[in-house]
Amino acid sequence: MMRAPAYHRWLGIELVSAGGGDVEVRLPYREEFCGDEAGTNIHGGIIATLADIAGCFAVISAVGHDVPTVDIRLDYLRMAPPGETLVAKARAVKTGRTIGLADVEIRLGSGRLIAVARATFMTSAPGRETLIERNG
Amino acid sequence: MMRAPAYHRWLGIELVSAGGGDVEVRLPYREEFCGDEAGTNIHGGIIATLADIAGCFAVISAVGHDVPTVDIRLDYLRMAPPGETLVAKARAVKTGRTIGLADVEIRLGSGRLIAVARATFMTSAPGRETLIERNG
Amino acid sequence: MMRAPAYHRWLGIELVSAGGGDVEVRLPYREEFCGDEAGTNIHGGIIATLADIAGCFAVISAVGHDVPTVDIRLDYLRMAPPGETLVAKARAVKTGRTIGLADVEIRLGSGRLIAVARATFMTSAPGRETLIERNG
Amino acid sequence: MMRAPAYHRWLGIELVSAGGGDVEVRLPYREEFCGDEAGTNIHGGIIATLADIAGCFAVISAVGHDVPTVDIRLDYLRMAPPGETLVAKARAVKTGRTIGLADVEIRLGSGRLIAVARATFMTSAPGRETLIERNG
Repeated sequence: MMRAPAYHRWLGIELVSAGGGDVEVRLPYREEFCGDEAGTNIHGGIIATLADIAGCFAVISAVGHDVPTVDIRLDYLRMAPPGETLVAKARAVKTGRTIGLADVEIRLGSGRLIAVARATFMTSAPGRETLIERNG
Repeated sequence: MMRAPAYHRWLGIELVSAGGGDVEVRLPYREEFCGDEAGTNIHGGIIATLADIAGCFAVISAVGHDVPTVDIRLDYLRMAPPGETLVAKARAVKTGRTIGLADVEIRLGSGRLIAVARATFMTSAPGRETLIERNG
Repeated sequence: MMRAPAYHRWLGIELVSAGGGDVEVRLPYREEFCGDEAGTNIHGGIIATLADIAGCFAVISAVGHDVPTVDIRLDYLRMAPPGETLVAKARAVKTGRTIGLADVEIRLGSGRLIAVARATFMTSAPGRETLIERNG
Repeated sequence: MMRAPAYHRWLGIELVSAGGGDVEVRLPYREEFCGDEAGTNIHGGIIATLADIAGCFAVISAVGHDVPTVDIRLDYLRMAPPGETLVAKARAVKTGRTIGLADVEIRLGSGRLIAVARATFMTSAPGRETLIERNG
């Protein structure tokens, strides 16, 4: 499931562990991730993507089905140097009948914290109503 | 500047207009953007990346130098179907001496609003202090 | 409805207009609103409260029933001097079957923008399920 | 410092402990805190205010001077029944030269988690520049 979407495949996302609302995800470096011409940091959009995926999978691991992202907030603490593998740990803080909340920490391989994120997901069982809401 | 970073080049980001705190950015579709196996939507991480870039460029267009992202919030309103070109319009709501704020709207080519974002950027002139803060 | 809750009565919230997802709310100054010993600004918590109320009423004016707040983000742009009446204008950006989103601008009487907010509300009809989720 | 502002005095905020970026703050119940006519919950604006104060004091306890709030996000997990004392624990996640970030958890006396918050503060030493930015 995690590797199937085209964007996950291109990124090279690796699921390290998942279960009961906790997941760990790794993202090895690709040259295309570089965020500035001088080559000093990984693009914030890559970090945002990793946070969204990790938070989503944390909630999925608790509720057992796909959950669309409602909103996400990212706080960037330090730059991530090119070449680094990023490691995201996410935890489902709440999994209600309609809404779930996940916290995510993103670190370098050294353990250095570079970003935190918090995201809300729609946990109501997927079906006709959800599709109408998302597309209507 | 906009096309130089490796990730911007891979994405294919196009700057439509920029000046005085307002920018418009386009992102034509690539097959790698697809966010699920069934092929029903563009990945949220692509939308987050586009919002970050547009907001950042709105503030840059007002202050005249690069600005690191401090934090960003995204709200996903509707799914973006694969194949669609995404259009982001961003506006600098505030550009203070240390902090800038930008609002972003992301739409399909048809004008349909699919996401909104709000992001804070560090506007203090880049230099030794900023680098220490970002890397220290 | 707006004046009934004890906290709304204590604040002295005034509903100026409401309908179709747009509301305007006023908050005249009280001495207890002051946020620092030197008396230079209105407390951020008062501004957050006003934003929450205005956003909530914008969504209520569109869906016709009470909606619990899921999350809110506030950005403080400038200090609000004591003595000022605050004016909040809120607009429902989305009112789906389960989630609604509202944007809020808070200004001084002079029109000066001092804060913006964006909040998510649970729009599913109130009832047993919602109560279980909120209290369970 | 904590009790001096008029709004803190009215609320009845009590500082339990503070130091090195960690604080605990208590807010005993007042009848004016009630958020709905039926009397079923404490107003979200009270919870937002408590989170703002606790996060702010966490950063102050690390940097040693007052810090204006830049932005805050609150996630409401469960309703807080009237009559309950609220307890907020906040931790400074980052205290850079210009920006600080704090995480806040708000619980009932029983330990039940009712809300989480994350806020950005301006940590640059207060002075003429900050005043110009905040008022300019």
